[in-house]
Amino acid sequence: MFDFRPVGYVIGLLTAILGAMMLLPMAADLYYGNSHWPVFLESGIITMLCGGLIALACANGVTEGLTLRQTFLLTTLVWVALPLFGAIPFILGETEARVVDAFFEAMSGLTTTGSTVFTGLDFLPQGILLWRGILQWLGGIGIIVVAMVFLPELKVGGMQIFRSEAFETMGKILPRATQIAAQISVIYLGITLACLLTYLILGMNGFDALVHALTTVSTGGFSNYDASFGKFQGAPEYAASVFMVLAALPFVRYVQLVNGNVTPLWRDSQVRVFLSIIAILVLITTLILTSVFPHHWEQAMREGLFNITSIMTGTGYASVDYMKWGGFLVIMFFFIGLIGGCAGSTACSVKIFRYQLLFASIRSQIRTIHSPSGIFTPRYDGRPVGQDVLSSVMSFFVLFTVSLGVLAVMLSFTGLDFTTSISGAATAIANIGPGLGDIIGPAGNFSTLNDTAKWLLSAGMLVGRLEVLAVYALFTVNFWRS
Amino acid sequence: MFDFRPVGYVIGLLTAILGAMMLLPMAADLYYGNSHWPVFLESGIITMLCGGLIALACANGVTEGLTLRQTFLLTTLVWVALPLFGAIPFILGETEARVVDAFFEAMSGLTTTGSTVFTGLDFLPQGILLWRGILQWLGGIGIIVVAMVFLPELKVGGMQIFRSEAFETMGKILPRATQIAAQISVIYLGITLACLLTYLILGMNGFDALVHALTTVSTGGFSNYDASFGKFQGAPEYAASVFMVLAALPFVRYVQLVNGNVTPLWRDSQVRVFLSIIAILVLITTLILTSVFPHHWEQAMREGLFNITSIMTGTGYASVDYMKWGGFLVIMFFFIGLIGGCAGSTACSVKIFRYQLLFASIRSQIRTIHSPSGIFTPRYDGRPVGQDVLSSVMSFFVLFTVSLGVLAVMLSFTGLDFTTSISGAATAIANIGPGLGDIIGPAGNFSTLNDTAKWLLSAGMLVGRLEVLAVYALFTVNFWRS
Ligand SMILES: [K+]
Ligand SMILES: [K+]
Repeated sequence: MFDFRPVGYVIGLLTAILGAMMLLPMAADLYYGNSHWPVFLESGIITMLCGGLIALACANGVTEGLTLRQTFLLTTLVWVALPLFGAIPFILGETEARVVDAFFEAMSGLTTTGSTVFTGLDFLPQGILLWRGILQWLGGIGIIVVAMVFLPELKVGGMQIFRSEAFETMGKILPRATQIAAQISVIYLGITLACLLTYLILGMNGFDALVHALTTVSTGGFSNYDASFGKFQGAPEYAASVFMVLAALPFVRYVQLVNGNVTPLWRDSQVRVFLSIIAILVLITTLILTSVFPHHWEQAMREGLFNITSIMTGTGYASVDYMKWGGFLVIMFFFIGLIGGCAGSTACSVKIFRYQLLFASIRSQIRTIHSPSGIFTPRYDGRPVGQDVLSSVMSFFVLFTVSLGVLAVMLSFTGLDFTTSISGAATAIANIGPGLGDIIGPAGNFSTLNDTAKWLLSAGMLVGRLEVLAVYALFTVNFWRS
Repeated sequence: MFDFRPVGYVIGLLTAILGAMMLLPMAADLYYGNSHWPVFLESGIITMLCGGLIALACANGVTEGLTLRQTFLLTTLVWVALPLFGAIPFILGETEARVVDAFFEAMSGLTTTGSTVFTGLDFLPQGILLWRGILQWLGGIGIIVVAMVFLPELKVGGMQIFRSEAFETMGKILPRATQIAAQISVIYLGITLACLLTYLILGMNGFDALVHALTTVSTGGFSNYDASFGKFQGAPEYAASVFMVLAALPFVRYVQLVNGNVTPLWRDSQVRVFLSIIAILVLITTLILTSVFPHHWEQAMREGLFNITSIMTGTGYASVDYMKWGGFLVIMFFFIGLIGGCAGSTACSVKIFRYQLLFASIRSQIRTIHSPSGIFTPRYDGRPVGQDVLSSVMSFFVLFTVSLGVLAVMLSFTGLDFTTSISGAATAIANIGPGLGDIIGPAGNFSTLNDTAKWLLSAGMLVGRLEVLAVYALFTVNFWRS
């Protein structure tokens, strides 16, 4: 018999923590004198109660570690349970959302996707806006822990090459997760505070600075305004670009940095490739915007830097409606969203290291074609990479692409047009936020989609956030065979 | 020093044969009393002369076999040289095409893509129409030989799993190619004649039956009419569907069939999967067309069968403007074009066997995740598949996808819109024919595109037809290092 109790225990605890977090937006509503604050008290009590009861019910089955299957199940179930409870304030609160909308918004928050079904953000109570920010911030730290602890153990999507890094001697998976979460939380909190301070200095009001710091550092992309970051043109765009990049770098390097070791950050080829791609794309965009449009070079560079960084890191803020930048830049935005940031960060999508491994593998393949008797081992960061890792990365890529295609077909079946279907599937699975086109593009939002499309997109966000294979593994007969 | 002479010799001979073929459309023009016939005489003489001279110039360097590098170079250069010469009649003839248009049309013919830059097909001289058919027919037989002899030897895209089938004892690559080409030609010619007869019986006139037989059996898709196969609604659609399917099955099975061995055809899992997918898709389409549109069930089934088979086999005829069938069917047409037919046929795209291998590999990966100590070897048709083949297939898939993305970005850079760029890239690399949208969709054509887009699409057709890696291998430093 499969023992659900250890899984249930952890989920119960995390749910209770989520419930406790709801007291923060309550405090915000109280502070700003919104009569809206009881919504969060109520939601918080419900959530803490449910979480506590689940944990209690499962407490007698808690073991020191988790089996492999329990770890798989835990990873996915956490990202199903927390959005369910995180959605409660959206249902009870001023947004008066239906279940599907509330769940979509909470899933979009916790997966750091940042697609929104709410309009008139500018007029929502501060509590709701802060709660959206908190969901993304928690989702961000959650995914870093999963990417650093769980996925390498589960050998999903080639993440096993990061297995022995930095944390190899920390023992079993649950205590290790707690220990890493603690270390990373300090760093994550530090970057968030630095971002908050910077935004304050650059003239944002306290509340905007706080929420946008939460959603910048998590590469989440929720904003307090329908105009997204368009509300803060100028210096804040530069600041946000820096912090989005920081959030998309591998967090294990920051742990090393804190321990006084600077070199690994510069030596990490992921980081170099990632920064180079951004630099080149910003240059191209600047050239196009200054030559084709009547942009001043500073404006062109700033808008290029901000919007490219935003899509490439998967944050999904928009400071302008780049659909108006014309065919080439629009399709470029589509594809850079499929590149993504570095592994072990809050960034999502295929990610730089996988492209590096894919191309290393293809290079060695071509060399084998040329000299059939030779043996060419692909390398990553100078070290040889095993065939199992390469297969794993390639399987990830295939499943990612096929999932995107299947999701696009299913979306179109609900009646969406070609551009909305394809870009909606991509933005959900790559956890970016905005799609392309008039409906879900940078100037639109997801509110007008039909319910089926919203459920499908929610599922897509989950699958994409957990690196595809971690979710699909649950749907195999073998998994449930004891 | 790299010895180009054996490569040049074969190319010279093939060019001369292409020149001789030009006498057929000359005969057609003479027969129909078109004053247009000297165009083909002139083109034929130029081509035969050039081909003969190239062959002569290289004759003193001919060896019995080809080295691996020479084989690579030959494969690609053939598909560059023949379109160059095949384009001549389009430049000199009544189409008065500019070089870019003529080259596009010839490349589209020889790669069996079937995208056309000509309008008013209904009024072109028979010679030109026949020449387009002959280009596709030659391209079809050419690609079967390449897929059965060259690609398995070159170990490109996983084709090596077909290496030892049927022809293992035939010795060195060139004599073997000749021998296979001879066997296959007989079968190919037989199917063409059967198709021609069927079309005649179903009421097409002699000329239409001939040209459409040539472009059906090659899954090419050029038609004599702007309305494509819409001119022949009814029974001919059923007949064409059958022959398109026959052309997309593995030709090695026909060789076995001719030798009295029926079972391999039914035992081939590619064939079963291919036919099942078509059956399911036709069923879905029929249901949608009868429920959403006021179609009679026979019309719905016929149009579904014909157009689905046409896209899935990569033929690219259209009998109706399926852009009007609405979002879901349109996007489905986009993705089934990326499935394709069976290996070793005239069909193109990713192909069934690669998806089978990809999913077999992912299945074994998931089993390894569940039981890390177990070893699970993926199987294809019951036999275990080596890791080298799987890597090769995955590399193909990655390169195919990335090429499609890069080509789409480049096309949009020339000013094309999102749908045209993406579907244009897909239709070129998968050698299908029509794209999506108003411009290059089933009711449109490629004439209005800019020149850069036409060159890019021509390159895409070449890369896709030769299974991507065979072309890219030429562009590596290692290839040219002696
Ligand atoms: K995001
Ligand atoms: K075709």
